[in-house]
Amino acid sequence: MINFFKYNSSGNDFIIIDNREKKIQLKVSEIRKMCDRNFGVGADGLILLESHEKVNYFMNYFNSDGLPSTLCGNGSMCCGHFASILGLLEKIDNHYIGVFNTREGDFDVQVLYNLVTISMPNVSIKHNTQFITVNNEKGIYINTGSPHYLLIKSNLENFNIYKNVIRIKESSVFKEEGVNVTFVEINKENLFIRTYERGVEDETLSCGTGVVAAALLQSIISKDNKDIVKKIKTRGGIFNVDYSFNEKQQLFEDISLSNKVNLVFKGTYHF
Amino acid sequence: MINFFKYNSSGNDFIIIDNREKKIQLKVSEIRKMCDRNFGVGADGLILLESHEKVNYFMNYFNSDGLPSTLCGNGSMCCGHFASILGLLEKIDNHYIGVFNTREGDFDVQVLYNLVTISMPNVSIKHNTQFITVNNEKGIYINTGSPHYLLIKSNLENFNIYKNVIRIKESSVFKEEGVNVTFVEINKENLFIRTYERGVEDETLSCGTGVVAAALLQSIISKDNKDIVKKIKTRGGIFNVDYSFNEKQQLFEDISLSNKVNLVFKGTYHF
Repeated sequence: MINFFKYNSSGNDFIIIDNREKKIQLKVSEIRKMCDRNFGVGADGLILLESHEKVNYFMNYFNSDGLPSTLCGNGSMCCGHFASILGLLEKIDNHYIGVFNTREGDFDVQVLYNLVTISMPNVSIKHNTQFITVNNEKGIYINTGSPHYLLIKSNLENFNIYKNVIRIKESSVFKEEGVNVTFVEINKENLFIRTYERGVEDETLSCGTGVVAAALLQSIISKDNKDIVKKIKTRGGIFNVDYSFNEKQQLFEDISLSNKVNLVFKGTYHF
Repeated sequence: MINFFKYNSSGNDFIIIDNREKKIQLKVSEIRKMCDRNFGVGADGLILLESHEKVNYFMNYFNSDGLPSTLCGNGSMCCGHFASILGLLEKIDNHYIGVFNTREGDFDVQVLYNLVTISMPNVSIKHNTQFITVNNEKGIYINTGSPHYLLIKSNLENFNIYKNVIRIKESSVFKEEGVNVTFVEINKENLFIRTYERGVEDETLSCGTGVVAAALLQSIISKDNKDIVKKIKTRGGIFNVDYSFNEKQQLFEDISLSNKVNLVFKGTYHF
């Protein structure tokens, strides 16, 4: 038996387990089973919150396919809230603040009730972005802690993303490492995005690193509006992305992602 | 906060709540939210196990759309196991036996470890079945406690059921009351079925009343093999259906459905 907490951030959902005592070792098949929506608990990913020598905690993230994965923005926000419940963060007035470690490095977290803000890795235009053409269509690759391949689409709500994702995933560029595929509709007031996540192998209702990638894409192609808070709409909800642009180094920095997260239930899983 | 148990029977899954003290009143929107697979607990249906004056318990069943619904075979099996845990059934050796009430009447339940067998309502050929043609295709309507419209298909695994369900659900025959649509592939060794459930408004991995309807369909069209145990394969698992045929009354009777059910986790839901 194992105790867990079930969170979501705009519909992107996670099983989070307190593993500070390092007693829990889950096999790939066990994580996959727990993430199964009919036979298990159901989630896009599973997080083991673990102790860390230097910062407040380590976020050990796995996708629903059971494998450890790269940075997960929504998972980081949910895990930050969980850390505040566990008393792992510093309390300043009504805020909780701290630093967490991931396989992609250290990030900041702030929690105010259920509103969570996290910092995200810097994105260098030279090193972390690239225009790539797949099947005669030009898209942009942006690594925001997880790799995204982005394509601009109109009428995205009715767009058949599955059909398009297959040809991208199977292209020689992405076949080996895999990639998250994010489709972006650019409207006057906001961006609307839909993301197919590798490791989940399905569309999720929202994707934090995809939301950030879409905000940067707009800056890159428009070559302006580089220092504003952007509203990014997903099927699961609307996110705020904040960042600044270092003209000299051609670097997006001080990137932060905010959203309200929900602790939906806590449970005891029967193996 | 509300305590619940999460069960599945071959992938058809349910939130079950002990409501013997009648303290829990859930709104349609609350049930719908709890059954949501990303924002809630996630389930095809929700069951309130309630006290009953005459039999062991009342199974108060709701589909994932939040509305009370007709008989649910898999839900009945899961709820039977839950009743055995609560000590509501009579113990005879390793078996637990009892009677439960539903909106469709009283049924028997037997539990042996996680193997559950339930009785199902009699099906009269005259009163509960009917050949119906929708859009030039002839199918059969069978009411096994819940109404099913069944069509025989080959290569069912790759069949696009959504496209076909729309025209059936929107036909004048079924538009008002709604219907479960069950597609049946008849093989030498077993039947393979896929069911689109009304109220869930999606394909489920298995459907108990659909499994029984498919077994009876084969008897009706083949006009033999009327007294055997049948194996019915679904996407979620294989079921046993047992029944006998009363030639004089043209009645399927002593129908029983068996399957292994799983208690996957118990939880506390945060409203």
